[in-house]
Amino acid sequence: MEVVLKENERIDDLQLDGLRIIQNSDGFCFGIDAVLLSDFARCKKGGTIVDLGTGTGVIPILLSSKTKASKIYGMEIQDEVADMARRSVALNDLGDRVFIVEDDLNNSFDHIGKGTVDTVVTNPPYFSNGDAIVNPTSYKAISRHEILCTLDDVVRVSSQLLKHGGAIYMVHRPHRLVDILCSMRKYRIEPKEIRFVHPKRDKKPNIVLIKGVKFGNPELKFMDPLVVYNDDGTYTDEIYKIYNSVNISVFDKRSEGDE
Amino acid sequence: MEVVLKENERIDDLQLDGLRIIQNSDGFCFGIDAVLLSDFARCKKGGTIVDLGTGTGVIPILLSSKTKASKIYGMEIQDEVADMARRSVALNDLGDRVFIVEDDLNNSFDHIGKGTVDTVVTNPPYFSNGDAIVNPTSYKAISRHEILCTLDDVVRVSSQLLKHGGAIYMVHRPHRLVDILCSMRKYRIEPKEIRFVHPKRDKKPNIVLIKGVKFGNPELKFMDPLVVYNDDGTYTDEIYKIYNSVNISVFDKRSEGDE
Repeated sequence: MEVVLKENERIDDLQLDGLRIIQNSDGFCFGIDAVLLSDFARCKKGGTIVDLGTGTGVIPILLSSKTKASKIYGMEIQDEVADMARRSVALNDLGDRVFIVEDDLNNSFDHIGKGTVDTVVTNPPYFSNGDAIVNPTSYKAISRHEILCTLDDVVRVSSQLLKHGGAIYMVHRPHRLVDILCSMRKYRIEPKEIRFVHPKRDKKPNIVLIKGVKFGNPELKFMDPLVVYNDDGTYTDEIYKIYNSVNISVFDKRSEGDE
Repeated sequence: MEVVLKENERIDDLQLDGLRIIQNSDGFCFGIDAVLLSDFARCKKGGTIVDLGTGTGVIPILLSSKTKASKIYGMEIQDEVADMARRSVALNDLGDRVFIVEDDLNNSFDHIGKGTVDTVVTNPPYFSNGDAIVNPTSYKAISRHEILCTLDDVVRVSSQLLKHGGAIYMVHRPHRLVDILCSMRKYRIEPKEIRFVHPKRDKKPNIVLIKGVKFGNPELKFMDPLVVYNDDGTYTDEIYKIYNSVNISVFDKRSEGDE
């Protein structure tokens, strides 16, 4: 299928089942976080996935290949980015499984029934509003800072979307861990699994992957640490394995380790 | 000073300023957790420290050398263990700085004023009551399982003891992390620093060190991981440095990594 490309946009090959994505080097390129989250998430065959804050739609597109979910929704509030995501869905001829919904995630229930979702995935804005000076109108700022939605919004909406026993898979920054865990408990999502991602093996983590289960019993498990770089600056074997399906050259390495 | 030793008790040299401790190989020997916590904790000169659940008193005794605190209280509910701790305090002639209080920690305020403490340290029971089958009358079970106090008790009492800006330093097991962080927030102690301890560098953490500050601002920092063993089974340099002050041969290695 042919699609229209706007200024500064390009089509990148994801090297996974022939999938491609429209990116914009001035604004949105997906980063390591999206790749790690897509690798971490699970969904049963025929299930429903919702990606809250989908950006260019890279996570739904990757999950269309990595899972056998029958419906994958991507909620995105920013019109220009949602438009890119819709065109990428069309480009990959995924219109029967992937649905980009352009709306505030607080309005999710206008589009997706409460308690109907098996898996929520989310790569939400990392920085609370007090964390840093931002340009509150820039697309990048909105995706990185809690300008149009807060962590509390994301977890509350996730809890309402999820079935009993459904799971949320989140990628975030370790400095927000207390907020994440307490917010999940508040909305009856029990944190069940944590994996820390370390830039090098002797360094503190700069990314965290968290799985929570709606109405789950308290029992937190840690996974072995995921290390991105060897001491010599090359990627570790595990990262190569995770990236195997993804064209490393097309994603924004600036996101690795920013905090 | 001479002290009476009971059956199965022995005196071990801590190799730190000539300090010694009475241990009982059938019941109580201190473990890596106590050593790591003593290394992690800080207290200002002339300050007051409280150790909630002090056991044989190893942490107050180590902190008597590692800090310049003027008063160090050890709360211990079990009479036989509190008695060992008192005799170790006497053995080291620390009666003017270290005070073993034999009481339920929920009665701390009968002995120590609310809002008067600079530093709380605690190595509380790790396992919630539902976690495992236990013999609820054994000394060891009481120190390891939430039989006579819960994590919520420990954090609530700590919060009431601490001055505004005072800090709690806790060692615990990672599987209780959600409980710990949410409980701290509940009682207005903000988690500020986390250090995970990994048995080997590629393995998941089995010990967590957490610093929280009474009325602190939300800003969680991670420290670089602390790795206990090299791949060849020898201790890492950092562990040797931390253990430097402590006679490795006298502590209970069984506690390393049990979960």
